[in-house]
Amino acid sequence: MVQCFCGMVHDLGRRGFLGALMAAAVDAQAPAPASAGPADPALIEDLVIANHILYDQGVVDGFGHISTRHDKDQNRYFMSRSMAPALVTAEDILEYDLDSTPIDQRGRAVYLERFIHGEIYKLRPDVRAIVHSHSPAVIPYANVKVPLRPMNHIASFLGGGVPVFEIRTVAGPASDMLIRNAALGHALATVLGPHPVALMRGHGSVAAAQSVRHVVFRAVYTEVNARMESEALRLGEPTFLNDEEAAAAMKTNDGLVDRPWDLWKRRVTAK
Amino acid sequence: MVQCFCGMVHDLGRRGFLGALMAAAVDAQAPAPASAGPADPALIEDLVIANHILYDQGVVDGFGHISTRHDKDQNRYFMSRSMAPALVTAEDILEYDLDSTPIDQRGRAVYLERFIHGEIYKLRPDVRAIVHSHSPAVIPYANVKVPLRPMNHIASFLGGGVPVFEIRTVAGPASDMLIRNAALGHALATVLGPHPVALMRGHGSVAAAQSVRHVVFRAVYTEVNARMESEALRLGEPTFLNDEEAAAAMKTNDGLVDRPWDLWKRRVTAK
Amino acid sequence: MVQCFCGMVHDLGRRGFLGALMAAAVDAQAPAPASAGPADPALIEDLVIANHILYDQGVVDGFGHISTRHDKDQNRYFMSRSMAPALVTAEDILEYDLDSTPIDQRGRAVYLERFIHGEIYKLRPDVRAIVHSHSPAVIPYANVKVPLRPMNHIASFLGGGVPVFEIRTVAGPASDMLIRNAALGHALATVLGPHPVALMRGHGSVAAAQSVRHVVFRAVYTEVNARMESEALRLGEPTFLNDEEAAAAMKTNDGLVDRPWDLWKRRVTAK
Amino acid sequence: MVQCFCGMVHDLGRRGFLGALMAAAVDAQAPAPASAGPADPALIEDLVIANHILYDQGVVDGFGHISTRHDKDQNRYFMSRSMAPALVTAEDILEYDLDSTPIDQRGRAVYLERFIHGEIYKLRPDVRAIVHSHSPAVIPYANVKVPLRPMNHIASFLGGGVPVFEIRTVAGPASDMLIRNAALGHALATVLGPHPVALMRGHGSVAAAQSVRHVVFRAVYTEVNARMESEALRLGEPTFLNDEEAAAAMKTNDGLVDRPWDLWKRRVTAK
Repeated sequence: MVQCFCGMVHDLGRRGFLGALMAAAVDAQAPAPASAGPADPALIEDLVIANHILYDQGVVDGFGHISTRHDKDQNRYFMSRSMAPALVTAEDILEYDLDSTPIDQRGRAVYLERFIHGEIYKLRPDVRAIVHSHSPAVIPYANVKVPLRPMNHIASFLGGGVPVFEIRTVAGPASDMLIRNAALGHALATVLGPHPVALMRGHGSVAAAQSVRHVVFRAVYTEVNARMESEALRLGEPTFLNDEEAAAAMKTNDGLVDRPWDLWKRRVTAK
Repeated sequence: MVQCFCGMVHDLGRRGFLGALMAAAVDAQAPAPASAGPADPALIEDLVIANHILYDQGVVDGFGHISTRHDKDQNRYFMSRSMAPALVTAEDILEYDLDSTPIDQRGRAVYLERFIHGEIYKLRPDVRAIVHSHSPAVIPYANVKVPLRPMNHIASFLGGGVPVFEIRTVAGPASDMLIRNAALGHALATVLGPHPVALMRGHGSVAAAQSVRHVVFRAVYTEVNARMESEALRLGEPTFLNDEEAAAAMKTNDGLVDRPWDLWKRRVTAK
Repeated sequence: MVQCFCGMVHDLGRRGFLGALMAAAVDAQAPAPASAGPADPALIEDLVIANHILYDQGVVDGFGHISTRHDKDQNRYFMSRSMAPALVTAEDILEYDLDSTPIDQRGRAVYLERFIHGEIYKLRPDVRAIVHSHSPAVIPYANVKVPLRPMNHIASFLGGGVPVFEIRTVAGPASDMLIRNAALGHALATVLGPHPVALMRGHGSVAAAQSVRHVVFRAVYTEVNARMESEALRLGEPTFLNDEEAAAAMKTNDGLVDRPWDLWKRRVTAK
Repeated sequence: MVQCFCGMVHDLGRRGFLGALMAAAVDAQAPAPASAGPADPALIEDLVIANHILYDQGVVDGFGHISTRHDKDQNRYFMSRSMAPALVTAEDILEYDLDSTPIDQRGRAVYLERFIHGEIYKLRPDVRAIVHSHSPAVIPYANVKVPLRPMNHIASFLGGGVPVFEIRTVAGPASDMLIRNAALGHALATVLGPHPVALMRGHGSVAAAQSVRHVVFRAVYTEVNARMESEALRLGEPTFLNDEEAAAAMKTNDGLVDRPWDLWKRRVTAK
């Protein structure tokens, strides 16, 4: 039981914070963990559709990935094998434990940066879905000192601030920029803290939410907001949503994510 | 009978200005109002097509809405149930009275911000169609002090000035930004005044016109003009249309809205 | 016989310069002129395809038009009836004389601004095709003092300078901005002079060339160049093509217009 | 045997550096060189697909070209006849020697700028594929003094610096900007040196890599990076990848090029 960034006390599962820290040092050749059994098919369907939506909406291209926590086990998550999100089918979804070890890899390549997902799930019991992307309007904010802030109520989830992860503080000045192990994933998750979105300098961003649909909403509108903020900053000094407005609007919007989801889903399934 | 913002004296229907003001305080549980009967099918068809055009032209995404006043009753209007505009069919169109109470809801969800429409129809008898959107190039102008102004004759309807509605002046500093009741709708309608377009800080914009086709024209070209103005402001000091040029060009253009409508309609019906 | 802007002496046909000036004052109710007979079907096919290409390439939207001079008579030109270019078919093409009077209107609406075409054909015997558009990246240059200049060899036709037509100098400060008569068309044609492209303040631009394919090339790449120049100007002080480079590159490119034409044509005919 | 820009000593084939320099002065009417025989069909298929991908991804339009070195002979390369890349089929691929003389032209037009390819292949034995394009976000960097630098790990191949070729230093102040002979191609190849990408002032850019898939990756992400860098520079002072990060990330990415290739290929083959 630990005090989480979201202000509540949670059971982090079998490992907890110390487990997370130790996992980073553990031999990756350990025996494969056991499966928690099949997920609700609707969850896997949403995950596949979400892969396609993120591409169709310009959040991911050939790179980037989305995961969802297992609905039957807080200590497992699902994510595609290593491939372009737009091409993912249900057959490509793998189950991972929170150390990001695949349960039944069967020779398939896995994402080098799967540790982003496992380590955030460890530190954020409230999170059930995560997107990592290089969405193009967001990256400039990862590399400059201007903060990403909510231009309108739709992006109100940006209201509490958007932290920036500088990999040099953990991996030194000569890394290949990738979150390629648990220690780096843990460091990123720590910077994310209780926020829905964090930026990664020289890399991209990560979004977290309570469901696949919510995290897709956040990933899409982080990109949309970045485009609008860049335009506004060139015109003058924008009035952003203040923290109270952002909190109130986020509460409202969290009940409305199915509206754009229905649209985005029809776009990718009609093709 | 009241003096309208458009400079003429109108019969505002059964309620008038005072009725509008009082309606904001009235119990929403009042019995459902009676229908004014079916509309001209061509009007409903235009409204459905307009929903699709606004998405196809980048004015709305999963959010935003368009309404039209009833052709048989100045005190009724039509608008979709709560859903993404691109997916709207004739079956989804609901009739509302000017307090934005649905006539025959049958359990369907309604837009939280329907009061934008009802309250503008109350104050603007000349208006027969309204679009509310978060179109992305326009929002920066809602958050900065630079005014939106007509770059060319096509956007001449912006000539008389584009007011900005700051919800904090009515709802205080901690609202969820939504026009979620009649009082807020009335305040927005008052800021809109006699203009075709008003911006909403931290939110989006609203456009009003004499028909569905005219309001679609205005919503699309407000967005197009915002993009062009932002580019021009970065190059230098633009010469905008002056008010006389804008008024003359708007008169000409009001006779030409079918030309782009035919194009936009074919795009969405050919799919 | 007159000395033309292109530096050569030409026979301007039955009217010449004085005829052009007088035509602006003539009663529009004069009897319809005689047809010069059918054009080469390949010319009409190119004109129809060009209408579709200009829309597909983002040069025109619901507005804008393209014409071509008659291949059998220097004093006639072809252009669509008043409609969105993307929807034009061979049936919609009308024949005009150089006063922009339709030969056989049969009740069809004609473009209010057809005088752009007739008056340029009068002053520029070398010109066989004209595009008028509101292409969005170009309009900012019509409204500011920064000149449009060639960023690379593809837009070398911009090398000799791009004049800007200010309608206020002819129509006064309260026009509806349209080139709605021969006098305005003549004034615009005079500003265009020997250049391939002129901008129209608060309106758009016009491009002229020796063939339909050449004018489409110029209209498309004027827009592309404007986008690139705007980006470059924000980064620093660009080195543009000098006049010698532009002249040499334009000569080369004039032999290569079929290459993009084949691509653009396949795009619009494959749909 | 010569010391190459890549730091290694290579056999440059039958001609070598001196041959390259002399070739520029040789009579183009020399007898056609002999074919090195058919290529691996998979190589030609990749080359055709690459032509389509480069168009679909916005790197080339009607202009631009891609070549690959012959898999059986270091002194031969393949490239399309002169046409828009999007329309290229296997039938359009020609074999060239390193003087850029077509082996079996059969009356087909060849790219005026084929010397870009032959001369780079001569100086860079490590290079097996080359793209020349006018991709729009890159050209501004060719015309200003701001260097193109890697915004994230995906564009890490830009890490060692991106040289700019100024044709005026070789062709004087009045060229048509084209690399229309071997001497100009050699000068460009010399400026490229050991780098993966070079810019061409007033023209476009060139990318080189160890395979068709790698060069497509680089051409696409050079354009993507240029867009992001332009945005970032307007916001503030970006932190780019340093040279160590870029070198490490490039090594990782060189193993991942099939991921976006699979996506891009499906896009163009599904049409």
